[in-house]
Amino acid sequence: MRVLGIDPGIAIVGFGFIDKIGHKLTPVQYGAIQTEAHTPSEQRLLQVYDSAGALMDKYKPDAVAVEKLFFNRNVTTAFDVAQARGAIILAAAQRGLTIGEYTPLQVKQAVVGYGKAEKKQVQEMVKVFLKLSAVPKPDDVADALAVAICHAHSAVLTQKINEVKRS
Amino acid sequence: MRVLGIDPGIAIVGFGFIDKIGHKLTPVQYGAIQTEAHTPSEQRLLQVYDSAGALMDKYKPDAVAVEKLFFNRNVTTAFDVAQARGAIILAAAQRGLTIGEYTPLQVKQAVVGYGKAEKKQVQEMVKVFLKLSAVPKPDDVADALAVAICHAHSAVLTQKINEVKRS
Repeated sequence: MRVLGIDPGIAIVGFGFIDKIGHKLTPVQYGAIQTEAHTPSEQRLLQVYDSAGALMDKYKPDAVAVEKLFFNRNVTTAFDVAQARGAIILAAAQRGLTIGEYTPLQVKQAVVGYGKAEKKQVQEMVKVFLKLSAVPKPDDVADALAVAICHAHSAVLTQKINEVKRS
Repeated sequence: MRVLGIDPGIAIVGFGFIDKIGHKLTPVQYGAIQTEAHTPSEQRLLQVYDSAGALMDKYKPDAVAVEKLFFNRNVTTAFDVAQARGAIILAAAQRGLTIGEYTPLQVKQAVVGYGKAEKKQVQEMVKVFLKLSAVPKPDDVADALAVAICHAHSAVLTQKINEVKRS
């Protein structure tokens, strides 16, 4: 199973494709989509949508995983992030991909095993899980890989639960 | 000039097309896009995007006007609205349409002439401006027409300012 993890934004979108073969996770490709600050917001939204769609077409994931949004102090930024998130989910829905949504707590539990883990711990564990030589930068990329790992782990759990149910 | 006013949402999207010929405003078509509550959210987002795009293709507006989002008490709903708003702005950007964004204050000032006007007053003035026999229902439709009127009025102002500058 190939999972695309996304850390949505309007200035920078972190993305990370990982393969889960058996219980092994392998990084396929990761990086960031970036848009210019002086560009009109609707054009930035279009760039995010087009770039995310192009990545989905190139690396053909089975599922797209993205964090659920929570209210933060900067409301305007939060709405911009939500609009970009909408554009990316739309691109995934148009391609019939499974969409997994996880709370930050779920991501931390899946990656570190502890829901109150700090950002730095999550990033270190992303490095360990994917056998990377360094923590991917910027943070958005590591965050995108973390939610992809969370989805892959959840898929393993869902599979086990189904096996138990069947036995 | 033809303006499409939008009141975004995930369950219901109000829309209203109006024509501004000289200083006269005429309603062209208005109504609501609705999605079913039991449908997965990404499918609802896709329905909103497809329906909004189909309306743009059918009625060919020059501009799309939409209210700026403000934080309200229900954060989850606000994010859903922002995602739907993103999908609609994306559809407009893909068609190269002008996008006008207005605060609720600007809409009230443009339609009622008073920024603290109540919702009911705005709806009554929408009826008067567009010579409708009744206030359009649901409220989302009247709200969509209000932001369309706001854009049409702002366009008149922008035009006048440009005329003064040129003279």
